[in-house]
Amino acid sequence: MNAEEIVNTFIARVVAKDLDGACELVAADIEYDNVPMGKVEGPEGIKATLGPMVEGLDEVEFVMLRQTATGNVVMNERVDRFRIGDRWADLPVAGVFEVGPDGLITLWRDYFDQQTLNDQLAALLG
Amino acid sequence: MNAEEIVNTFIARVVAKDLDGACELVAADIEYDNVPMGKVEGPEGIKATLGPMVEGLDEVEFVMLRQTATGNVVMNERVDRFRIGDRWADLPVAGVFEVGPDGLITLWRDYFDQQTLNDQLAALLG
Repeated sequence: MNAEEIVNTFIARVVAKDLDGACELVAADIEYDNVPMGKVEGPEGIKATLGPMVEGLDEVEFVMLRQTATGNVVMNERVDRFRIGDRWADLPVAGVFEVGPDGLITLWRDYFDQQTLNDQLAALLG
Repeated sequence: MNAEEIVNTFIARVVAKDLDGACELVAADIEYDNVPMGKVEGPEGIKATLGPMVEGLDEVEFVMLRQTATGNVVMNERVDRFRIGDRWADLPVAGVFEVGPDGLITLWRDYFDQQTLNDQLAALLG
């Protein structure tokens, strides 16, 4: 798999809520950075960040608007969607991924607006 | 010039505060979207948005961290920096650009955190 295929497979597992499967594709020291929130490290960091969220959601969807790749860097423009019951929260995101020479993802960094996320989650939960 | 070269030239002109020159590279109906702030259209929209900012700044710098391109889409990860006197404001940004078949940029969309921009500008101006 090339870098783009690895990232696509990783994302497919995340939205399927298969965090263990997703983390098979990441390096032990992966940097997972939600820019306005801060960064965590490693598969444990990813699971600690996404686990509680994924458990509370009925459905997760990443709508891909655009994706570009050069060498080992993949970037995408997405709308990340989270469903509880019949309500959806939508978050516009731009993501950056880097894949190491061993085919494991070493960087996942998402750019978004924190207030937009807060407002969307409040409406989802309210 | 390919899409990436066109975007690089456009950005070089923006940071040189040459908005007229930059706008020679954009389509008449370009969408310029600062995601948390909203979108404007056309060269007039770009000049109305960036003109007052550029005039009040002593220096503008876009530090490129990563750039990827696939076909007519270019994405980059940047730190946009704005200087007044000896103070700098730094804004982490992920940008999306699309280039039309005539070589003119039809989309410039930047993802960032609005509160980070507000805090940085307050510190710059304070």
